[in-house]
Amino acid sequence: MTGRPIVLFQIDGGDREDWLGAAARAWPESRAIWAPDASSADLAAATVAIVWRPPGGFLGSLPSLRIVVSTAAGLDHLAGDRSLPPTLPVLRRQDPATAAAMSEYVLAAVLAQHRDFPRYAADQAAGRWIPCPAPMAAERRVIVLGLGPLGLAAGALLATVGFGVAGWSRSRKPDAAFPTLAGWETLHEALSRADTLVNLLPSTPDTRGLLDGTRMDLLPAGATLVHAGRGDTLVLDELLARLDTGRIGHAALDVLPEEPPPPASPLWHHPRVTLTPHIAALPLPEPFLRWVAATLNTDL
Amino acid sequence: MTGRPIVLFQIDGGDREDWLGAAARAWPESRAIWAPDASSADLAAATVAIVWRPPGGFLGSLPSLRIVVSTAAGLDHLAGDRSLPPTLPVLRRQDPATAAAMSEYVLAAVLAQHRDFPRYAADQAAGRWIPCPAPMAAERRVIVLGLGPLGLAAGALLATVGFGVAGWSRSRKPDAAFPTLAGWETLHEALSRADTLVNLLPSTPDTRGLLDGTRMDLLPAGATLVHAGRGDTLVLDELLARLDTGRIGHAALDVLPEEPPPPASPLWHHPRVTLTPHIAALPLPEPFLRWVAATLNTDL
Repeated sequence: MTGRPIVLFQIDGGDREDWLGAAARAWPESRAIWAPDASSADLAAATVAIVWRPPGGFLGSLPSLRIVVSTAAGLDHLAGDRSLPPTLPVLRRQDPATAAAMSEYVLAAVLAQHRDFPRYAADQAAGRWIPCPAPMAAERRVIVLGLGPLGLAAGALLATVGFGVAGWSRSRKPDAAFPTLAGWETLHEALSRADTLVNLLPSTPDTRGLLDGTRMDLLPAGATLVHAGRGDTLVLDELLARLDTGRIGHAALDVLPEEPPPPASPLWHHPRVTLTPHIAALPLPEPFLRWVAATLNTDL
Repeated sequence: MTGRPIVLFQIDGGDREDWLGAAARAWPESRAIWAPDASSADLAAATVAIVWRPPGGFLGSLPSLRIVVSTAAGLDHLAGDRSLPPTLPVLRRQDPATAAAMSEYVLAAVLAQHRDFPRYAADQAAGRWIPCPAPMAAERRVIVLGLGPLGLAAGALLATVGFGVAGWSRSRKPDAAFPTLAGWETLHEALSRADTLVNLLPSTPDTRGLLDGTRMDLLPAGATLVHAGRGDTLVLDELLARLDTGRIGHAALDVLPEEPPPPASPLWHHPRVTLTPHIAALPLPEPFLRWVAATLNTDL
């Protein structure tokens, strides 16, 4: 990037002061602009757009734009703006802080299920004191679906803690720190081994609705789920039916097809559901922008 | 151990079939006896006693006993039986499975606090969806009090996951995998640094009631607590007063002075308390007995 980057922030739901303050600290060579407040001169001059769910027509309206930076690892949130010029490069969020945050969340959710924290919370509320031995982590087979940088990092951390980790993705991942399966023809085998299934699949035409009832029924009885990639890769009604019967023992859901769920949704009060509000890997503006600055700090 | 060890189990609250079955699989060279059912000939012949909270007079009544094996790392539970001959060796539970289980529990509890799971659980119950960024693990200073084998293992695992770990114990621990402080004169400093305090102190005359209100007030405001060593090292009423005001942000309590707490205890319903029924490191009979067999499998 030559000269002084003019960085336009278009972050749906983001806090202006958080992002502009972080930019001043983490990327002082840039000039940071909050898109909803920008003058037409600023919009015309912007060279970098940092975006989350840009509105339709936004990206195509910026004549000096040289690169788009996504605040998410998945790019499905760009689909609402079809004006993105097809020749413009897009930088996915792949900073180490994101992989660390996602790995932490996945580990926290897997450990909570492994050590029966949801049941003990229900026991506490009911005044019950019922100790039950837990198996060792090595005896718990955790399967990670989706082996992008986040799935690879989460699986490696789970393996470090001692879980019996394996991964599945469409393409081979020879550099994974744990055993992996690749290709659609092995998905059946991967699911059949999952005492705990960690779903970090991206949202693509191939993965939307992939975790449906038929595939859930390949899991061992009582298997648990951690769902923290994209909400629409899972068929929620078919999950709820299996939670109701205990066929699936517990689900930690950080992403949903509709966020937040409607007030009448059974998710709010289901005893087998732990709901978190899409916080597995919220972007932390300052480390994220430090990474963007370091990653783009060369001539394009 | 020469000959065939005659192993007497005296496990308060333990399940006879679990322990005898595990002994047959994990230590087939031994003859395993359940003390409450034992004949006087068996009691007279027993060479090894594996015990949890033995009743008064039990250990002194076994004329052939050569060693006592504690199913806990701490030996305070032997205090109820003053008949333990002072020359008899006692093997503490220090099998790798115990250190792994305690480390897992501590990590699960620290991660849950770090990622605000208690608040999100309350939000879920109330139908609220309020994402809040969490700091990175490296910014969270976790202090482990008590650096026996369990504290050393738990601290090492927390450090591996990325937390800013330090430890405190009465004596120096040069082999710790993380920075440590030693001696009473440094306890003040250790407490003052603890965003999260992990208390794994044993119960001794020096540590009973050690975590009282005065020492809790050395913690940073809003600090959280994971209490999984021995219940009586903490003054519960003084903790509850500080949880009521938010001076202490949250406490995960696995051990208590009285277990289970009485039905009227505020612990059952306190919004800042996660209660688990002394399950951090329940002995798993089979790996524990494999370790005992391997550890004692020499001439005494």
